[in-house]
This record gives sequence, structure tokens and C-alpha cells, in this order.
Amino acid sequence: MSVTAPRGFRAAGVAAGLKSTGARDVALVVNDGPTHDSASVFTSNRCQANPVLWSREVVRDGTVRAVVLNSGGANCYTGPEGFQTTHATAERVAEHLGIGAIDVVVCSTGLIGLQNDRADLLAGVDAAHAALAADGGPDAAAAIMTTDSVSKQVVVEGAGWSIGGMAKGAGMLAPQLATMLVVLTTDAVVPAADLDTALRAATRVSFDRLDSDGCMSTNDTVTVLASGASGITPPLEDFTEALTQACTDLAVQLLQDAEGADHEIAITVLNAASEDDAVEVGRSIARSNLFKAAVFGKDPNWGRVLASIGTTSAAFDPADLDVAMNGVWVCRRSTPDEDPAGVDLSGREVTVTVDLKAGDERATVWTNDLTHAYVHENSAYSS
Amino acid sequence: MSVTAPRGFRAAGVAAGLKSTGARDVALVVNDGPTHDSASVFTSNRCQANPVLWSREVVRDGTVRAVVLNSGGANCYTGPEGFQTTHATAERVAEHLGIGAIDVVVCSTGLIGLQNDRADLLAGVDAAHAALAADGGPDAAAAIMTTDSVSKQVVVEGAGWSIGGMAKGAGMLAPQLATMLVVLTTDAVVPAADLDTALRAATRVSFDRLDSDGCMSTNDTVTVLASGASGITPPLEDFTEALTQACTDLAVQLLQDAEGADHEIAITVLNAASEDDAVEVGRSIARSNLFKAAVFGKDPNWGRVLASIGTTSAAFDPADLDVAMNGVWVCRRSTPDEDPAGVDLSGREVTVTVDLKAGDERATVWTNDLTHAYVHENSAYSS
Repeated sequence: MSVTAPRGFRAAGVAAGLKSTGARDVALVVNDGPTHDSASVFTSNRCQANPVLWSREVVRDGTVRAVVLNSGGANCYTGPEGFQTTHATAERVAEHLGIGAIDVVVCSTGLIGLQNDRADLLAGVDAAHAALAADGGPDAAAAIMTTDSVSKQVVVEGAGWSIGGMAKGAGMLAPQLATMLVVLTTDAVVPAADLDTALRAATRVSFDRLDSDGCMSTNDTVTVLASGASGITPPLEDFTEALTQACTDLAVQLLQDAEGADHEIAITVLNAASEDDAVEVGRSIARSNLFKAAVFGKDPNWGRVLASIGTTSAAFDPADLDVAMNGVWVCRRSTPDEDPAGVDLSGREVTVTVDLKAGDERATVWTNDLTHAYVHENSAYSS
Repeated sequence: MSVTAPRGFRAAGVAAGLKSTGARDVALVVNDGPTHDSASVFTSNRCQANPVLWSREVVRDGTVRAVVLNSGGANCYTGPEGFQTTHATAERVAEHLGIGAIDVVVCSTGLIGLQNDRADLLAGVDAAHAALAADGGPDAAAAIMTTDSVSKQVVVEGAGWSIGGMAKGAGMLAPQLATMLVVLTTDAVVPAADLDTALRAATRVSFDRLDSDGCMSTNDTVTVLASGASGITPPLEDFTEALTQACTDLAVQLLQDAEGADHEIAITVLNAASEDDAVEVGRSIARSNLFKAAVFGKDPNWGRVLASIGTTSAAFDPADLDVAMNGVWVCRRSTPDEDPAGVDLSGREVTVTVDLKAGDERATVWTNDLTHAYVHENSAYSS
């Protein structure tokens, strides 16, 4: 399962004492080849953690042989000492595998501004290497969890090849990217340049459209590794479609496990002049605390939807907007239409549909409601 | 007091049945002259309520003789019928005063997408006109409250002239403008063009820097009326300074009464390359739900401050940022410095100071923490 479903991969997840709970906190994913093609995308936050600074260099040549990940500390804003910890982690993995450290991606997650204990982390790498197994995916997925309540894994089958994936993330989920670490694996033969094309296409419509709380992390990393062990080179279109399916599945799992959320909200913007317009409008609604609190209160407050649309630069006529919630068109031509009392918000899934009447493009952005539990979890996280 | 402190003004606030509680909900402020100069600023939201659409035309020539305001319904996205209600309201005021409706600003606040009862509203105008008094300011200030727990009033004394003001607003407070209605009065002689200059200078550093919840209203209006009744023409610089003082005082009152807030947070950005950069950085921190929830939890989580700074386009070196909370420099050169345990967040007032080390400009942005009470109030507002 998970990242070890495709052939050519081993993985492990062990407890190294970085988490005070004693839970698994170091994961290792190794690509045994024969190919070692890879592609990655990172957070667009300008404040980036040490593992991101390191891994950006690692992925530059399209070759990655292993990914080592830890929870229990983000290693962000920890200065030169923190960077040395990241470097030492990659070196230790490389020593065990007989490869170069420059082919080892490092990912960390947890609190910012906290040094990880380097000795504990390196001992964790030793233990993870010793535990590497062809069915180690689930352990690895468990080891990267922070406030996640469940681990996130996916497998998508192709024609004689497959894609596996794991993800972590529950808060600080916002576009470009959500706060998350994602490792995807495939035994298809896919050259690094094609992997890059496919990954960017897949993340653009999945992780990049997830906006749980508008907060963007310093540590986000998505890496895809191709082992080529199936010997099959799928058409790029097929591979991209399967990778998009895997990323969307993981994105929805992240959404469903978002900290303290009561509702998953899918905001679809129709008939926009451009896809960018559709995404901008969807995102502005997804970031309205007032709207998100209303959904928590099961209140179909479409006025807050219109107020959010009005803050964007998208093309539309303010006097001719239609809005539906769960299929009930509560607003047409910017005036009240069907009775909001007909909108049933008792279930977890909520759809908001906005018709901009300005073109032919569309996009869906996902978010959660704003709840007491969100405030509770995020006011108590580090204390 | 309030808008009736300067000479030349009468005001009233009455109950017209628009609020189900029976509280005052219609306010009227009349400028008896001899001058009727005015200036206004409105929400920059592209979705604008009917009173805003009307009042934008009213203020165009710099002459305003009265402002009529109602709570109990925003008259936004209520279509042509709603616009006619606004127009009828202005006409009724004009009839009573023997003036033209085109000199009457109309402001409404409350739920979006709800028709106000026109008969109730017009009867309220009749009652408000009958109740007009030279000491009616406090009643008017009470009549514009919605979720406000207290009315907001201010008086600033000049040399033989004064400025009075009232404001409402407790949620949907975000820049350009906060959700609020503000009426300012003065008995100074100030031509409309100078009033406009002074008002824009004053709001730029007061209401525009208040960002309680990142949500921008459809109804915001700030209007200043000059009666000239003192006969004194102050230097524009003096008047602007006094008007800025009045607006800042009202902005802080709005901040202190923000829905459900436990803390007032002043974010000061130092040594920015431009004032715009300083405001952008301050606003990005003010909009971080994670940071605001941490303050509610009395957790000096400076990592969330850095993560917010990183989402901006301001000039800075990500490896050389300093951050203080309540005067304790918890982060210097982007690494941990003084012990966060020394940051006492038990009081209501919190300061965050960011040193960008990129220039000489600075700005302060105000916000609140994100609390259980905020979620509660905004999930239950319309139900």
C-alpha cells in the first residue's frame, strides 16, 4: 500500500523520540530503481524551512534516490545549526544507502523555531534504514502525522504500472501549497522532465486549490519518484491523469481531516472569464471567516458570499450574480430567489456554486468551516 | 456630545421596529449650516448596497445637508425594490427639511439580502425628524448599533471649533473600509475639497488600517459634514490632524468592541522599504487565523508571524527578520532569541513589532484575536 505499492520502493516509519508522545516520527522512502527520476514542488512562502532550502538543491538535476521525513519539529527559523541538522540527516541516509547526500530529499514538520535534537534524529535514520521493507508504506505514512487524526494514503492503478502516495497535513492548509508533506511513487518509466510537467499539472488543480485556513506553511514539499521497475512507459497524458487522481484523492483526505472542521465546502465558480478569475473568486469565499463561521452555524448566509466576491478583481456584473448552496439558488440576478430555509446544512458536505456569467471557464476550490474546535486546536498547539 | 457637539447640528435616534428587539434603529443627523460642505469615502467592495449606490451620487457635488441611517437591515442585494426604498427614505427626509433628496446621504446596516419594511422605515424618518435636537447625538449613535455592545462617539476640540463623530461596527471589519458607518461633524469652515483631502488622509491611517477579521463590507460609509457655524477657518493641517485624531479614536473603539475578541493586537512594522510594504506585512499577520488563535491561547507563536510575512511581496531578507511580542524580541536574525516564556499575553493589549531592515518607513495595523466567541457570534448572527 501507500508509497510501497509500486514496485522498486522500500519504506519505513520509526519512533525516534522527537514526538513527546513516543509515536513514530521518522520516515524513510527509498527508490531502488532501476530509474531515479523525480520532480518536486515546494511552498511559495518566502520564509522557508531549512529542509526546503536543502531539498530545492537536491531536486535540481531530476534525480532523487531517497526521501527522509520527520515530524516533531519543522526545523524552520533555526539558523545555521538547523541547516546543519538537515544536511547531517541527508548524509546519514546517503551513508546507509551508499549514495550521495545530494540525492536525498529532506522534509520536516512540526513547530517553527525549535531545534530538532540532532542525535535523536540521526538515530531515527539508523532505525528507519534498518526497518526498510517493501510493505513499509503505512508505517512511513504514520510517522509524518502531526495534528492529523488519520494517515493519508492512496494507490492508483495504471496499465501494468501504478502510483502510490502518502500525505500529512491538517492545519495551515492554503494554496501554493497547503501545509503538507507529500511523497508520490510510481514504477512507471517517466523521465524527470515529464514527471515535472505531470506533477505541476496535478498539483495545480488539487493541492493548490485546497484552502483550509488561508495560512501558508514554510515547509510544504511534494515529491514524486519514478523507479521504472514496471518497465512500462505510459503515455504522458495517462500518467498525468492518474497522478492528478492521486493528488486529488490525497487533497480531499487532507480536507476531510482539517483541524476541527465540521464541514467540507466545495466552492465551484462557473462561467468565469478565465480560470484565474474562477480560482480568485473561489479562494476569496474560502477565506471569509464570516462565511465559514456561518456554515458552521448551518446558516446559508449568501450575503457573505457576495461580499467576498466583491473583493476580487474578477470580471462580473455586481448586479447579475447567481449563488446556490447545496443546489438551492438562494440568489439570482443579485437578488433573493429560492428560500434559504430549503438549504440543508446538516451534512458534512457543502457545495457553493457561483455563476459569474462572464465567460466559459470554471474552477473548484475546497475549504472547511470555521469552528470552535479550530480555534481550540490552534490556540493550544504549542502550549 | 458626539455628532451634535459642534454647533450647527441636530440629531435624533428612534425605534422604528426594524430591529426585532425594539431598540433604536433609525438615526438622523442634520447640518443646519450656514455651510453644507461635505466629503465621504465608501467601501471598495465591488458588491455595494443600495444606500452606497445612492449616496455616491449624493456626495458628488460636495454638498450634504443630512444623513439618515438605519440598522436592522443592510438593504444590500435587494434589487430595484431595495433601491427604491433608499430613494424614498432620502425623499422623506428632504420633504421634512425642505431640501432636495440629492443632498441626503443614506446609510444602512444589518443583514444582506433582506428587504427593509419601507413603511416602518419612513415612519421612523418621521419620528426621527420630530425628535431632532441639539443634544441628540447619543441617541443617533445608539440607533446605528448592530452587534456593537456599546455606542462609539468622539469629540475633538480645536481652537474655537470642534469635531464630533459617531461610528458603528463590530464585525466584518477590514480595510477599505471596515464594516462600519461613521458620521463626523465640524463647525469649522472647511470647503468640500479640503474636507476631502483631510478625510482621505485621516481614514488612510485609521479605519483603513483596522482589520478585525479580513472581511470587507458592502455598506461602509464615512461622511464628514462641515456647518461653518463657528465662523473659523482653521489651517488645513490643523484640521486634518484633529480629524485624524477623531478617526483613530473611533477606530480604536471599533477594535475594542470587535465581536468576541479577547485581545486588541497592534502590529507595527519598522524599517520597511515603503509604507505600502509595511502595511502589506502588517495586514498579512493581521489576517493569519493561526496567529490570531495563538494569541487567544496566550501562546507567543512567532513562527506564525514569520510564516505570514513570507506570503508578502515586501522587501526583506528572509534570513534577517526580527520579531518582538509585547517588547520581548523572541526572534532576531530569523532565529530564536529571547525566551518566549517572557511574553505575558494575559492582558488585552498585545503589540507585535517586526523589523524588516529594508528601509525607513513604518506602519501600524490593528486586529483582534480569533476566539470561540467570534465563531459563536458569527455562526448564529442571522438564525
